[in-house]
Amino acid sequence: MRVLIIGSVAGGTSAAAKMRRNSEDLEIVIYDMDKDISYSGCGIPYFVGEDYISREDLTPRNSQWFKKRFNIDIFTEHKVTDIDFEKKLISVINLKTGEAFTDSYDKLVIAVGANPSIPNIEGIDSANVFPVRNVQSGERIKIFIKEKNPKSAVIIGAGFIGLEMAENLKSRGLDVTLIESAPHVMPSMDYEMALYIQDHLLKNGVKLYTSEKVESITENGRYVNTLSGSKIATDMIVVATGVKPATDIVKNKGIKLGLHGGIIVNDKMETNIPDVYAVGDCCEVKSTVTGEYIYRPLGSTANKMGRIAGDVITGGNLRFRGVPGTGIFKTFELTVAQTGLSEKEAATRGIDYVVSHNIKENQSKYLKESRELVIKCISERKSERILGVQIVGERGVDKRIDVFVTAMTFGAKVSDLFHLDLAYAPPFSTTKDPVMYSGMILDNAINRGRQLITPHELMKNRDSFTVIDVRSKDDYNKGHIDGAINIPHEELKETAKSFDKNKKYVVHCNKGTTGNAAQNLLLNLGFKEVYNLSGGYSQYKIEFGRVAKD
Amino acid sequence: MRVLIIGSVAGGTSAAAKMRRNSEDLEIVIYDMDKDISYSGCGIPYFVGEDYISREDLTPRNSQWFKKRFNIDIFTEHKVTDIDFEKKLISVINLKTGEAFTDSYDKLVIAVGANPSIPNIEGIDSANVFPVRNVQSGERIKIFIKEKNPKSAVIIGAGFIGLEMAENLKSRGLDVTLIESAPHVMPSMDYEMALYIQDHLLKNGVKLYTSEKVESITENGRYVNTLSGSKIATDMIVVATGVKPATDIVKNKGIKLGLHGGIIVNDKMETNIPDVYAVGDCCEVKSTVTGEYIYRPLGSTANKMGRIAGDVITGGNLRFRGVPGTGIFKTFELTVAQTGLSEKEAATRGIDYVVSHNIKENQSKYLKESRELVIKCISERKSERILGVQIVGERGVDKRIDVFVTAMTFGAKVSDLFHLDLAYAPPFSTTKDPVMYSGMILDNAINRGRQLITPHELMKNRDSFTVIDVRSKDDYNKGHIDGAINIPHEELKETAKSFDKNKKYVVHCNKGTTGNAAQNLLLNLGFKEVYNLSGGYSQYKIEFGRVAKD
Repeated sequence: MRVLIIGSVAGGTSAAAKMRRNSEDLEIVIYDMDKDISYSGCGIPYFVGEDYISREDLTPRNSQWFKKRFNIDIFTEHKVTDIDFEKKLISVINLKTGEAFTDSYDKLVIAVGANPSIPNIEGIDSANVFPVRNVQSGERIKIFIKEKNPKSAVIIGAGFIGLEMAENLKSRGLDVTLIESAPHVMPSMDYEMALYIQDHLLKNGVKLYTSEKVESITENGRYVNTLSGSKIATDMIVVATGVKPATDIVKNKGIKLGLHGGIIVNDKMETNIPDVYAVGDCCEVKSTVTGEYIYRPLGSTANKMGRIAGDVITGGNLRFRGVPGTGIFKTFELTVAQTGLSEKEAATRGIDYVVSHNIKENQSKYLKESRELVIKCISERKSERILGVQIVGERGVDKRIDVFVTAMTFGAKVSDLFHLDLAYAPPFSTTKDPVMYSGMILDNAINRGRQLITPHELMKNRDSFTVIDVRSKDDYNKGHIDGAINIPHEELKETAKSFDKNKKYVVHCNKGTTGNAAQNLLLNLGFKEVYNLSGGYSQYKIEFGRVAKD
Repeated sequence: MRVLIIGSVAGGTSAAAKMRRNSEDLEIVIYDMDKDISYSGCGIPYFVGEDYISREDLTPRNSQWFKKRFNIDIFTEHKVTDIDFEKKLISVINLKTGEAFTDSYDKLVIAVGANPSIPNIEGIDSANVFPVRNVQSGERIKIFIKEKNPKSAVIIGAGFIGLEMAENLKSRGLDVTLIESAPHVMPSMDYEMALYIQDHLLKNGVKLYTSEKVESITENGRYVNTLSGSKIATDMIVVATGVKPATDIVKNKGIKLGLHGGIIVNDKMETNIPDVYAVGDCCEVKSTVTGEYIYRPLGSTANKMGRIAGDVITGGNLRFRGVPGTGIFKTFELTVAQTGLSEKEAATRGIDYVVSHNIKENQSKYLKESRELVIKCISERKSERILGVQIVGERGVDKRIDVFVTAMTFGAKVSDLFHLDLAYAPPFSTTKDPVMYSGMILDNAINRGRQLITPHELMKNRDSFTVIDVRSKDDYNKGHIDGAINIPHEELKETAKSFDKNKKYVVHCNKGTTGNAAQNLLLNLGFKEVYNLSGGYSQYKIEFGRVAKD
């Protein structure tokens, strides 16, 4: 059996390697138009930022290695120009020699990846405009910085690649300006969580334009002109406006594509065309949370899909189970992670959900390395399942998102999290890990009448609630929610006696814990409707930032 | 209803707080013989090691705080001397005044914790001998170091407290000697994993005696004399030989104790005596892995049990689900974590298990912060469930153990781990996380005929196997397993043609990956019995360390 694979980055090489692991009886041939194979695309921002990271670090394996290790033939700089699904033939051009030829397959694996979405604007082809696409495009940025010594950069697009580039260009000494067309950075996240990232970027001296579009690039890339009239002088421009499936090769050939333009495959990585498989960034994948097809181009998912395709082709029983859609990145000192649905995605789908903002230290507070994490967790009220999580913080974010991902994978209810026997010692966690607290808060909200309200919901219906601020008078005087009454927690039991128990109350402290104690107290005293403000005054302040003094 | 609680560290205060969160209708009174309450016992080594950590950091809450926050009465320096389960009375002495009195309860929570096991040897009562028990004992060590400026310390016991103390005393400039009666440090772990810790201790200048007992302490604590005849001069001695349940108060009163001397409770934290509950370090807990009662005194578990007891007493439906028994600590730069069964525990129980040693980077290898992790994972062959995990490494160990713990909690099979959508970006992981690799290795071993053999098993039956070392000739010449044949992987396919396919082979590379490729190749070529050496030559070397040159 002869298997052809188009594309040799993560998915294609994973498929090939797995086939060979399972069988010595296949011919395996890969074509790739690029020079580099099996590279770490996610490493490009770090390659740009750090001198000690070399091109070879990002491309540890070449064709010879695959030949020696796996007896796999990889032809680089070979562009596949056409596929004939009927005749099981592909047309190839050797980009080095110009030679054109065809090759035939028994099984075909399409692993062509994604292309950057480059905005179609004047001046985008200037010499100092760089997409972030592959190792070579990273290398061009690195060389440009070395040779031209630019002092400033504009990054178009504030998704994770843009934000990673911001850190790495800043570390090269460049002045960095980020332009994002959405109302906030990381458009896939919720607004109030993205605000933490924006604060962190501003603290690190990054200039930020949101809800702003680039209209043109003029004077040979010297100026970036925005739709609202800003003219930003810059020495270089990085385009990080996302990627889209590189599916031109299969368009109008009857292969099924999804709403995002990616190839649709089943759990065996089969397309709707017989003997044609697809894996990696050219595909959409099933969400384990909603069952919908989503587009999540990531090396980790591409690797999974490749391994599964390789196993299926050689008769194995591995099947793709879908992904919640986990992502993580760091920018400067801040780590940002998310998985599953955002609140806006849950709202759009009409799901009845509960949200908690849980602000906790990553480790014992008395250790000087400890930092706060903010965990936003979204749970479906009826099933008590976790729908999505967003976390920002300087330390320990990666651990918490992975624990959530693992719990979600096994269908955890929020009430399950408290029971986890997570590893505790002062340098690593708190006696109850922040993940457990998120579970407890949501369990209490869903099952024990300890309802939560987000700052956003509160401010949308501000007049419906009496807000009780149970912090100290000092804290209250430094800033508080407009119209909030200050009753320090220790006075609440006595003072609340005179209150109307049938009104709607929102209680809050600084981050949520004392607010919960106050909520318990009022409910135990017979109050009918008491909400604890999710994330307390800290979360309110991030979102509404106003300091009222009355 | 009047609830009395004996003990106010983790379990007792958690129980009290949860009761009050649920109800305003209880009287809650706690007695504790100590001065400090609700303290972080696990923080003591760090308190000793770091000037910036104060007594107040470890004891953030006092009786007044609990009174104000929760209307709970805590009487410190009050020793409970007797309990009358029939009359529901306890006898108390006020240690400050000498006053004795009785108090009555409707419900009683025993949260008396644990006491250090102090070896009964000559000189143990010398003035420079310190147990690690509570905040005051930690403070005595800290003051002794400040005032007496000791140059050397002997630590008796190399469990996690002993190893944390080793780091913290060393950081104070002391010369540290560790004495452990078991054959290796961390007796709860398996030998070959403990060796990594021992190497790390030696690298950090700690002197180490294993399989060694302290016979006596002489000349007012100036000398520690061992059973095998060593006489170690020292300025101070720390006793870290573990703890045992402080159950003297309930002995011979009909309360059920377990094999480890701890109180036996059900999932509601009820003892066998009506209206008497027990939580925390004075209790044994059920293992989620074996269903057996185990003794795992830890603040995190005590907190859980306390919260559950508090909920049950106030009519709630929280129930204790048991724990796999997770532990973590760091010593110098090394983090060490374990959960569930060790290999020796699995073997003792006659379980048919499979072991893998998986040696991987914690993050993209080209980042200079990346470090190797060693993950030992033990899986039951029949059920494919994960029975236990041990991890050592400098970075990212806490994340991996928590992912394993979470997966185990939901009954994960080893084949489930590959499918986890764990968060990937170069600073946080590799495209396939090390946890996923452990799952893949064990899945391949159990379900796909890619059998593993540990260095220990191989060397026990060395003559039964032909060992093929597929590393380069250079690597082989630097050191190899006695009698191993060197066939670099790229030559294996050709060379193996002449081999007897019915003999037993063990293949290995440096850490396991190329060994697996070689194993696949031979099996695909029709070889009948081929094992991959678990952890490769690296793991062999840690355990057998010999360099054969023939």
